[in-house]
Amino acid sequence: MTSVPRRLTALRDLLRQRGLTHYLVPSSDEHLNEYLPAWHRRREWLSGFTGSAGDLLVGLDEAETWLFTDSRYHLQAEAELVGNGIALQKVGCPGVETLTEVLRTLAGRHGGDGVVGYDPLVIPRATAREYAEALADGGARLDPVAPNLVDALWQQRPEPPRTLLEPCAPRWTDRGVADKLSTLRSDLAARNADATAVVKLDQIAWLCNLRSLDDIPYNPVFEAYLLVEPQRARLFLHGAGERLPAGWEGFATGVEAQPYDAFLPALRELGPAAVLVDPARTTAGVVEALEANPAVRVIRGPSPLEAAKAVKSAAELEGMANASLLASAAKVQALMWLRARLAANEAVTEKGFAAELERCYEDLPGYRQLSFETIAATGEHGAIVHYGGADATPLRARELFLVDSGVQIDGGTTDDTRTVAVGTPDADQRRVYTLVLKGHIAAARQRFPAGTPGASLDALARAPLWTEQLQYGHGTGHGVGAFLNVHEGPFALAEARRPGAPGYGLQAGMVTSIEPGYYHPGFGGIRLEGLYRVVDSGSESDGARWLAFEPLTWIPFEPELVDEARLDPDELEWLGQYQAGCLERLQPLLPEDQAVELRAWLATAPGE
Amino acid sequence: MTSVPRRLTALRDLLRQRGLTHYLVPSSDEHLNEYLPAWHRRREWLSGFTGSAGDLLVGLDEAETWLFTDSRYHLQAEAELVGNGIALQKVGCPGVETLTEVLRTLAGRHGGDGVVGYDPLVIPRATAREYAEALADGGARLDPVAPNLVDALWQQRPEPPRTLLEPCAPRWTDRGVADKLSTLRSDLAARNADATAVVKLDQIAWLCNLRSLDDIPYNPVFEAYLLVEPQRARLFLHGAGERLPAGWEGFATGVEAQPYDAFLPALRELGPAAVLVDPARTTAGVVEALEANPAVRVIRGPSPLEAAKAVKSAAELEGMANASLLASAAKVQALMWLRARLAANEAVTEKGFAAELERCYEDLPGYRQLSFETIAATGEHGAIVHYGGADATPLRARELFLVDSGVQIDGGTTDDTRTVAVGTPDADQRRVYTLVLKGHIAAARQRFPAGTPGASLDALARAPLWTEQLQYGHGTGHGVGAFLNVHEGPFALAEARRPGAPGYGLQAGMVTSIEPGYYHPGFGGIRLEGLYRVVDSGSESDGARWLAFEPLTWIPFEPELVDEARLDPDELEWLGQYQAGCLERLQPLLPEDQAVELRAWLATAPGE
Repeated sequence: MTSVPRRLTALRDLLRQRGLTHYLVPSSDEHLNEYLPAWHRRREWLSGFTGSAGDLLVGLDEAETWLFTDSRYHLQAEAELVGNGIALQKVGCPGVETLTEVLRTLAGRHGGDGVVGYDPLVIPRATAREYAEALADGGARLDPVAPNLVDALWQQRPEPPRTLLEPCAPRWTDRGVADKLSTLRSDLAARNADATAVVKLDQIAWLCNLRSLDDIPYNPVFEAYLLVEPQRARLFLHGAGERLPAGWEGFATGVEAQPYDAFLPALRELGPAAVLVDPARTTAGVVEALEANPAVRVIRGPSPLEAAKAVKSAAELEGMANASLLASAAKVQALMWLRARLAANEAVTEKGFAAELERCYEDLPGYRQLSFETIAATGEHGAIVHYGGADATPLRARELFLVDSGVQIDGGTTDDTRTVAVGTPDADQRRVYTLVLKGHIAAARQRFPAGTPGASLDALARAPLWTEQLQYGHGTGHGVGAFLNVHEGPFALAEARRPGAPGYGLQAGMVTSIEPGYYHPGFGGIRLEGLYRVVDSGSESDGARWLAFEPLTWIPFEPELVDEARLDPDELEWLGQYQAGCLERLQPLLPEDQAVELRAWLATAPGE
Repeated sequence: MTSVPRRLTALRDLLRQRGLTHYLVPSSDEHLNEYLPAWHRRREWLSGFTGSAGDLLVGLDEAETWLFTDSRYHLQAEAELVGNGIALQKVGCPGVETLTEVLRTLAGRHGGDGVVGYDPLVIPRATAREYAEALADGGARLDPVAPNLVDALWQQRPEPPRTLLEPCAPRWTDRGVADKLSTLRSDLAARNADATAVVKLDQIAWLCNLRSLDDIPYNPVFEAYLLVEPQRARLFLHGAGERLPAGWEGFATGVEAQPYDAFLPALRELGPAAVLVDPARTTAGVVEALEANPAVRVIRGPSPLEAAKAVKSAAELEGMANASLLASAAKVQALMWLRARLAANEAVTEKGFAAELERCYEDLPGYRQLSFETIAATGEHGAIVHYGGADATPLRARELFLVDSGVQIDGGTTDDTRTVAVGTPDADQRRVYTLVLKGHIAAARQRFPAGTPGASLDALARAPLWTEQLQYGHGTGHGVGAFLNVHEGPFALAEARRPGAPGYGLQAGMVTSIEPGYYHPGFGGIRLEGLYRVVDSGSESDGARWLAFEPLTWIPFEPELVDEARLDPDELEWLGQYQAGCLERLQPLLPEDQAVELRAWLATAPGE
């Protein structure tokens, strides 16, 4: 940490040389990744803050140097920034300005003297526009600076891997690369475009039917750019063709490998072409390179690859169902292990439970890696919405224990959360758990017309909590990739405050989490999350196709925390069928002693 | 109607002279009005279509000439366009392209030869951008043409009125013009702006505390532009100061009147200034005039006037409550009149009922005019979502009768819909009515945190219908002005498909309709609409202020159409309290014989 002030001083020297008053070091990288590869963690290297989300604005003046992060990271950032000369902007707290608002304020203060430098290759075009407009409103400027100023200072920066990529297993992949490319080209033609430039790694991995476990933590993608034209498609890779597996030419006919660094020059030399770019999912630098090319007409629109990837094929849905059922069995095994330990009065720590759970995961057929860091949060730790990991804290009686975890298994990706009672729960724990469960059921059992925005389902999950003046600060659900990223677009079950994802219509074949929760200091945390596939109910009525959710996750809800008096008959019916569905599917997958324990658990009279 | 082809031919001659392939004649006008003054009904004059929404695209080629309108107007437009050489694009029907999509297709077809002319003074800036981008995607262009080509052809065009404007009554107006101007200037400063240009008439009428019943049907606004700077505010009016009432200088100190036509020149001469414009609520022509002025910095952002107007003051809320209670009493009087006629086996027509209702309205203290055309739709007519008006069709037994109406009363504006049974309803009518009622109650009784987007409340109203695979094609609620427009922004209870209004957060002091419905040929229509004010529940918990709805409309729901077995205990409790609240409030306002009839109606055993 002591090196951070030195690094900031060195950066400020560069600002002075360039005539900049500020420099923006965003959390994101060249591929707008959520989880960053080690060689792109510029904001972490410069600030000392290791969380997954947090933008840094460095001013010439230390008083104008801030890290902006959301409530998930307020505590962690406070600890990690001590002595670093960086003020923490706790975004989401009343009266705290967002980065855009601070830029607007700075523009008002500095006027035409304010010049904020940024690297256009690591910010989405739409975001750069937003920042530029906020600054322009006060007469200040957002100026592109190339190459990245942090890279100029960063000694001993890690290198990207050049290991062999793996082809997707044929069993879980029923759409070939040529087929996906041909659909993409039709989608482009419908927008009067004939080419597209892609920076998002999950879109590229999906299109190419390739994966890697070596590039990015948790996300089985690999660093690359993609450029699709009418007659050719180029994949820009570190080491070019040397990462491609044997037989690649056969299954990816029409895709040629080129060196990673040849991408930007290729954009400059392209044409004549009409190139579709998605301003929210393409970096400003890529769009600007295209705009600077006189032979290119740039067409802005939502990415057809993002839309196509979200609607899973039959084999992908089978892979997702297989992975989630296996992961459910592993989590139930670990929960039964926990019940046995607690019954025997043995101490269990968060870390101990996480280790047991991960051991169960590792035994699953086709297991590859976790899909995100396991969260095992007991008592107060549960009140931190995205508590990072698990520590040596022991589980204590009367606490709620929240476990959010997921895995990458050949063909599928999982994400589920359950909250269980340690010892006998009290009335308030049962009340709030039941309200969260009512929200989960409300969304999970709702029938809705095709094209309904995710925001509508989000509201149904929140309403039961709202009625008792309780709420949660995160979204209700996100898309999940098929042996890909655990968070993917283009839709979201989230409030409609922002345009885009919450307004995107749901379609049959999508996979989403449903995960209402509740978090409060002194109470702890509850989250009840499972994955669901969107299915066509098969009936068309009142001018619509009607959709419904079908569970992929099969982990029982904690009987001791359900207050049945608060459930109406429809909710009780849904719950009864779900619990029975879990028992039926899990029994064959568990060792006999654990199957016995599972039956005993589910037979627990509520509230006992 | 026979003159339409002649007019189109004359317009095409102008297109040829100007080198245009198409000309756009949108439904909107210089002030982006919903209801147009007679002198701005260009699309009606040119096409013969009289509906309130429908954009016309005229191609040199008759095969590329279309009117685009939504499901409310498909039948009417079909009838009115016969023989006019204009194809109807039934937007909302499967596979039918919107105007933007057609422009994209035309661009693909014509490429660089496609030039679509338009008048930038009658289209929002944001919409013009959308059209221009769709055309540019195919290499075609959107070209501004001034003055409007229709105006050049339109003989005997009506003149705007120059009658005296009326000041708002002090009883219903507790915020002075100076106070509103000073708030506006602070809001501008927070966005680094010091000036704003306003085209929306309800914003101008609200700020100036002035009204007129002579300019626009139903909307008590007047044609004007407004330009606010740090030291002055200019109101641009037909006839300038001659429309201003006596005493204007006293209550609107700091606002000067100028001729209407001086507005655009004033924009060109402005400066130096940082001018905030709302791209969705300002015409492209106004923004372009500002952009062409080198002394002006244009700042884009949501209109602070639109936001301020939506949060009603104490006097405005009192005016809204007074108006809605009076309008409720009038509607109940008309419904009791109807019950008596039907009981006596007398024939009643839609038109006859509407006349009786409007007679009751006219007797109300402070009555000024209707707030929109009364809809009285029986049987099949109810299946047409926004059936226009009322005709000589008699009400028949076993039909549902839908009445949607509203008034302007000094201090307030109303909008409410009830659906009643003619004779004994059948089981299916009761089932569907009860589902719509469940949706109404779900939204009306929901508590929610301040800032919740309207889209969330929208979903709660839809869910009960969705569960039985039924739906409605319109929004669930809209803002209502205080003695102003019956539809106003910036929020909407609507699905999150579009950015903007559905994502806008609700705040205490807003007034919204809640109006779920159901419409089906062979069944008829149901809509249950009332106005509600958003109130602060007074408690802060879980980090939020908690809001709730409080009814302004007090018209009982039809007891014979409520299937109580389908309501859960909470819903029954809400309904019982609401019905009792109606009785308590209405009895003192009704003649004794109608109060007796009301009590008898509410005592009807459900389903009898």
